[in-house]
Amino acid sequence: MSRANIGVVGLAVMGSNLARNLAGRPGNTVAIYNRSADKTHHLATAHPEAEFVTADTVEEFAQSLSTPRTAIIMVQAGPATDQVISQLADVFEPGDIIVDGGNAHFTDTIRREAELAARGLNFVGAGISGGEEGALNGPSIMPGGSAEAWNTLGPILESIAAVADGEPCVTHVGTDGAGHFVKMIHNGIEYADMQLIAEAYDLLRHAAGLSPQEIADVFRQWNTGVLESYLIDITAEVLGHVDATTGSPLVDVIVDQAGSKGTGVWTVQSAVGLGVPVTGIAEAVFARAISSSGASRRAGGGLPGPTPTDGKSGSAIGDAQGFIDMVEQALYASKIVAYSQGFDAISEAASEYNWSIDRGEIARIWRAGCIIRAQFLDRITEAYREQPELPLLLAAPYFHSALDDAQTPWRKVIQAGVETGIATPAFSSSLAYYDQIRRERLPACLIQGQRDFFGAHTYKRVDAEGAFHTDWSADRSESRVD
Amino acid sequence: MSRANIGVVGLAVMGSNLARNLAGRPGNTVAIYNRSADKTHHLATAHPEAEFVTADTVEEFAQSLSTPRTAIIMVQAGPATDQVISQLADVFEPGDIIVDGGNAHFTDTIRREAELAARGLNFVGAGISGGEEGALNGPSIMPGGSAEAWNTLGPILESIAAVADGEPCVTHVGTDGAGHFVKMIHNGIEYADMQLIAEAYDLLRHAAGLSPQEIADVFRQWNTGVLESYLIDITAEVLGHVDATTGSPLVDVIVDQAGSKGTGVWTVQSAVGLGVPVTGIAEAVFARAISSSGASRRAGGGLPGPTPTDGKSGSAIGDAQGFIDMVEQALYASKIVAYSQGFDAISEAASEYNWSIDRGEIARIWRAGCIIRAQFLDRITEAYREQPELPLLLAAPYFHSALDDAQTPWRKVIQAGVETGIATPAFSSSLAYYDQIRRERLPACLIQGQRDFFGAHTYKRVDAEGAFHTDWSADRSESRVD
Repeated sequence: MSRANIGVVGLAVMGSNLARNLAGRPGNTVAIYNRSADKTHHLATAHPEAEFVTADTVEEFAQSLSTPRTAIIMVQAGPATDQVISQLADVFEPGDIIVDGGNAHFTDTIRREAELAARGLNFVGAGISGGEEGALNGPSIMPGGSAEAWNTLGPILESIAAVADGEPCVTHVGTDGAGHFVKMIHNGIEYADMQLIAEAYDLLRHAAGLSPQEIADVFRQWNTGVLESYLIDITAEVLGHVDATTGSPLVDVIVDQAGSKGTGVWTVQSAVGLGVPVTGIAEAVFARAISSSGASRRAGGGLPGPTPTDGKSGSAIGDAQGFIDMVEQALYASKIVAYSQGFDAISEAASEYNWSIDRGEIARIWRAGCIIRAQFLDRITEAYREQPELPLLLAAPYFHSALDDAQTPWRKVIQAGVETGIATPAFSSSLAYYDQIRRERLPACLIQGQRDFFGAHTYKRVDAEGAFHTDWSADRSESRVD
Repeated sequence: MSRANIGVVGLAVMGSNLARNLAGRPGNTVAIYNRSADKTHHLATAHPEAEFVTADTVEEFAQSLSTPRTAIIMVQAGPATDQVISQLADVFEPGDIIVDGGNAHFTDTIRREAELAARGLNFVGAGISGGEEGALNGPSIMPGGSAEAWNTLGPILESIAAVADGEPCVTHVGTDGAGHFVKMIHNGIEYADMQLIAEAYDLLRHAAGLSPQEIADVFRQWNTGVLESYLIDITAEVLGHVDATTGSPLVDVIVDQAGSKGTGVWTVQSAVGLGVPVTGIAEAVFARAISSSGASRRAGGGLPGPTPTDGKSGSAIGDAQGFIDMVEQALYASKIVAYSQGFDAISEAASEYNWSIDRGEIARIWRAGCIIRAQFLDRITEAYREQPELPLLLAAPYFHSALDDAQTPWRKVIQAGVETGIATPAFSSSLAYYDQIRRERLPACLIQGQRDFFGAHTYKRVDAEGAFHTDWSADRSESRVD
């Protein structure tokens, strides 16, 4: 009976594709199980080449797996995941491995890992990026969990992951919730990346007056340079597409309200809690919220300000090609900041949750299979390989130099947006972060003075140890209070 | 025995001051209790005029109160609060009222209210703002809880609250956690307000080249105009203060690392979860985090960019007075945005948690006693009284007009900051919000196109009902998918 080395539970599109991906790799025999057996048999019939081992009950599923049993759960995050975990845990044995391949919140993963470890089972929360197509042909995979689990699971995941420069895009990220945390940050960075691209588009369209087709060409051009990436590539495709019904650019036909599925929100909530500024990601999440706030937008529609051109009435900017080049630089600089902030969140979480995370490896496994795959990630890997304890990605020599080159156009582009009433929240917040992090003295000294005034919160002095308080309501003498 | 109409548990500075405030108002007799009886007797001895009823045990405390018993807990948020609640609940009787006057997270308050309601007890989470001095002389109070509890508690709180235009700064905010939620938003707005002031200071100091003393004078002047507020007032005091040890402005002696105590972080986490953009508050929280990130700042110190002047080498701006006036307008406009966003968070939470909150009343009770007290709050109260369902505070006629006047200088000030390398994260994010909320078409349409491309997330069309998907990997035909 025990002839499968890996099982998949949950056979919706992602689970089916992952099962087919697994079955297609040498050495794997894949058991499949779904709550409704119909789906199981349908998948096996539709893909005889996969030679799936079907199971109608969770007990059959357990029997079909060689030990240590290894099963990947691909069901909805939340209670559905808990339910399946509980069923598997009842029929699995100590040493077996349960993998959650969904988008769980990393704190749920930490909880589940502890619960299953107490029963002798290995639980691995694994972030899987790349959508349906990635699941089928090679995703980027971010597994957490124990080293013991990785021994068995690692080769299986390596067999199905996307490949970049001959290396599979998977690594053992760290223990318990580390994998899901890193996947969450991946998605947060994706939010920032998409918002930055949207701002670049908006400026080219409504400040430089280019058409969507012309902007598609600009993005195609950018995709041969430092910005080369999947998101730049597909942006050109979307902008170049003409709607068959109306003959208009599709982008003009799509309702301008962006939705979200939670991981962007989680990233901001987690990073804020960890004390890590993720300004670009936060502005991206806020921009989507603003876009979807119907009543507020209707009420705000009449507020005064410069009117962006409609993209047909010509440029508000003198030299169009010069402006295009400046926007490219602004986008690149802001993107560097967003990634640097994302990696800061990973560092801080690693310290908070006792994960040992190799940041260079994280950039490496994002180079293929996932949404934010980009040329640029090689530079991040290099930076962390050169200096594993690098405190600030921005300050690595390559990025230092890139930001030096980019910053004058970066500033000019933001000024143009402010002038023409075209919002650049992510460009602007990235520059503001940059100008804060490099500043010798910040005005936070004044904030500390205010806090001491109204709340006796005390302050530190630049020239002495200790905490001090000024007696603001009396003679304003200072005393040391610790 | 039962001769006190109100009790206070926890006699650290805030609790002691609140007890003294209560005792000083006609009609109140105040019972006091503290875990260590020393403090209880010390307070009673130090303030014989208060005629406190002292209790050494929680049983004595319960016996000393007339029914319905009403006690305000002033202990540390978290487990200490839970412990005291549990002790009181054991000796109190159905119909009695337990008030938590600490800075609890509103979700804890919701949980506690439900637990005590099940035992027939009234639990009221009450935000109290104004620090030690407010507790003694009149704070702004934001109580949640049941209408039944408010019947008894209301007159007592009205007796001790700050007074603005003859009205006490307290109102029944809403049920269960509404009071603590509104207090949290108050603190979030306080963060934004302080950050905006810090940016104004930074620009005047390092772009216009004014000295702290000169800037103190500017703030004194501003305090006679639309910006009139407690925070502007104390900023002038802090900036005008000279350090006795060094003879330097105190602000130059204070370490430029701002701390925080949690409510700013909670505001951002809650608002992001509710889908409400609170860009100004988020940038304020991030700015404090950046200021305190020692290793990152050390690493970022060498990054290139314009060098702000040291404030002694003259102005980077032509006409100093003209620039001062522009900064005043920028600060005012950004402040309007921050308050509007805070009120949006209150509206959204009210809808999410079934609270009936009168936003005009909230602005009214913030006019005295609390840190963000300001002239300007009258305008907010008026706006909500005129239009109780106002969807966007920004769009009320008074603010519409103020923003119309302010926006050209607002834009110029941000451009000057970008040019000179002086970060204005809160000014910039407020303007970006403004330019987004008033925009007819946002580039979120492109984001929806991207999401449909890589994740089949579907999009809506401006000219038809339903959800649509383009088959990007094949012939790019469109189909309706719902």
